Amino acid sequence: MEKIRVGIVGYGNLGKGAEYNVLNSDDLELVAIFTRRNPKDIFAAKNVKVVPLDSLKDYKNKIDVVILCGGSSKDLPVQSPLCLSVFNCVDSFDTHTDMAEHFKKMDKAGKLSGKLGAISVGWDPGLFSMARLMFSSIMPKGRTYTFWGKGISQGHSEAIRRVEGVKMAIQYTIPKKDAIEKAKSGLNLELTNFEKHLRECYVVADAGADLKRIEEKIKTMPNYFKGYDTIVKFISEEEFKKNHASKLNHGGAVLHSCKNNDNQFSLEFNLNLDSNPEFTAAVLVAYARAVYKLNKEGKSGAVTVYDIPLSYLSDKPKEQLYKELL
Amino acid sequence: MEKIRVGIVGYGNLGKGAEYNVLNSDDLELVAIFTRRNPKDIFAAKNVKVVPLDSLKDYKNKIDVVILCGGSSKDLPVQSPLCLSVFNCVDSFDTHTDMAEHFKKMDKAGKLSGKLGAISVGWDPGLFSMARLMFSSIMPKGRTYTFWGKGISQGHSEAIRRVEGVKMAIQYTIPKKDAIEKAKSGLNLELTNFEKHLRECYVVADAGADLKRIEEKIKTMPNYFKGYDTIVKFISEEEFKKNHASKLNHGGAVLHSCKNNDNQFSLEFNLNLDSNPEFTAAVLVAYARAVYKLNKEGKSGAVTVYDIPLSYLSDKPKEQLYKELL
Repeated sequence: MEKIRVGIVGYGNLGKGAEYNVLNSDDLELVAIFTRRNPKDIFAAKNVKVVPLDSLKDYKNKIDVVILCGGSSKDLPVQSPLCLSVFNCVDSFDTHTDMAEHFKKMDKAGKLSGKLGAISVGWDPGLFSMARLMFSSIMPKGRTYTFWGKGISQGHSEAIRRVEGVKMAIQYTIPKKDAIEKAKSGLNLELTNFEKHLRECYVVADAGADLKRIEEKIKTMPNYFKGYDTIVKFISEEEFKKNHASKLNHGGAVLHSCKNNDNQFSLEFNLNLDSNPEFTAAVLVAYARAVYKLNKEGKSGAVTVYDIPLSYLSDKPKEQLYKELL
Repeated sequence: MEKIRVGIVGYGNLGKGAEYNVLNSDDLELVAIFTRRNPKDIFAAKNVKVVPLDSLKDYKNKIDVVILCGGSSKDLPVQSPLCLSVFNCVDSFDTHTDMAEHFKKMDKAGKLSGKLGAISVGWDPGLFSMARLMFSSIMPKGRTYTFWGKGISQGHSEAIRRVEGVKMAIQYTIPKKDAIEKAKSGLNLELTNFEKHLRECYVVADAGADLKRIEEKIKTMPNYFKGYDTIVKFISEEEFKKNHASKLNHGGAVLHSCKNNDNQFSLEFNLNLDSNPEFTAAVLVAYARAVYKLNKEGKSGAVTVYDIPLSYLSDKPKEQLYKELL
């Protein structure tokens, strides 16, 4: 069997996850990891080639699909279209307000190069988007709710760290149990993100800092915490390092409930992930395979998870899928 | 907006569910219900036309897609290919051992007529099949478990009713809690259907019947109960009629868990349905829409849920889906 030749751009947590998942897929071959850093500073897995990002264009006929592992704010808006002008690719672009524009740029680049790019792949956007579409199409009279967490919000953690007197901080987003019950009730209630989620903050304060003032500052911070149920817990540096450092867990749920006459229906998709980036990478890798297969059949431009039949995600032939999984 | 013209074949519980869901979809028009019974004996919703099954062929250019609501053992093997030789259609064929053959027959019929037929649509096979494929493609090193219930097994209920001295009976399949815990543990354990499910039987015995013998007969019945954790509860006819008659609820879960190094991942798709046929019908209706749209683009033959991009399930344009649900 000829393997699908894969390149990975970026070697942060997401890139590391992609590396792990490609190396563990029998039908994929990892050609190289491309980095903006000095390749010598990158400690990739054994026998994995690490080369400068600038050399990507030299791999024109040596790579079948590129997995883009950069960030949505600065990397992907530039990297994705550029990459798609040469290679099939897949990214996890998640800036919701800019998705339409990103799709348009990608579609144009792909139509020109004859390559295919899947955008906004991961779990949200991604698998959760799929659940939202499936559930609402099947039971359009019901209501769909998305819950996030328990998991870390990087943005909120950073915001806390900017408060005077804070040495270390982390913020967990936690879905509220009573909101989950309401969502499952079939009562078709409107629930805001504020009503659905709790913000739990673990803070290490500088010695002698005014804890009351820090707590007040956090809880009243506009855009981040104001209006939310926020819990602030002060802990020691030791405890922080032991229990809250380098945590990557996340998850969430898409719930759909519907009441037709006397019949209630509850549809639920749940994720519980010890590593958010490793899982996002696993989704990217399955879609990299799909993009390669679809492009081979002549499809070019941009696609999302809504446009790709599920059979393309698998490395198994259709007959086997019908037999074993249908 | 021109509506998609839909026909429904069969008016049992599934057909009634299809009628309900079509009538509640803005983009669909219910042309007629086709029945083998005397149309005068059918009490359909107001203003819904009910006509003899024989007249289906007269609707050649008046119906865009037919929803087949017959049974898998006798109706669909004949009705589905016949129907597909004239119309786009969708069925819920669920005899697993015969699916490959059914697909082949349907593919041939559709390729000849230029129409498209989706087979094995519902929740299992159907949505659960999709979850199994998604989960195992994304985390191939993990293991996928399917649990059914709590819900009624018609076949097992009938088997109990054949026992001498049994007046009325119903059997619920219930997933075992400890098995669900094991499935979520990430330990990659093999779990048989026997280990995963409990069989709970409610029995109304004839007056003076030997209850001990009935219980013994049920629990040792080969193929149905032998080897299973079976609970037999004798109840009064009154209680049976009040709590167990005309129950249609069902549900289940697809769980996937995976442990990579120290990271554990748990993926879960859950359904909790007050009416099994009404929900299956809702899935059929969404796929009827998809089949019509795909055929309009030139696709013919047979397809399954694995072959249809999710965007086709919705009545909304792609741009709106990207904006609101992605």
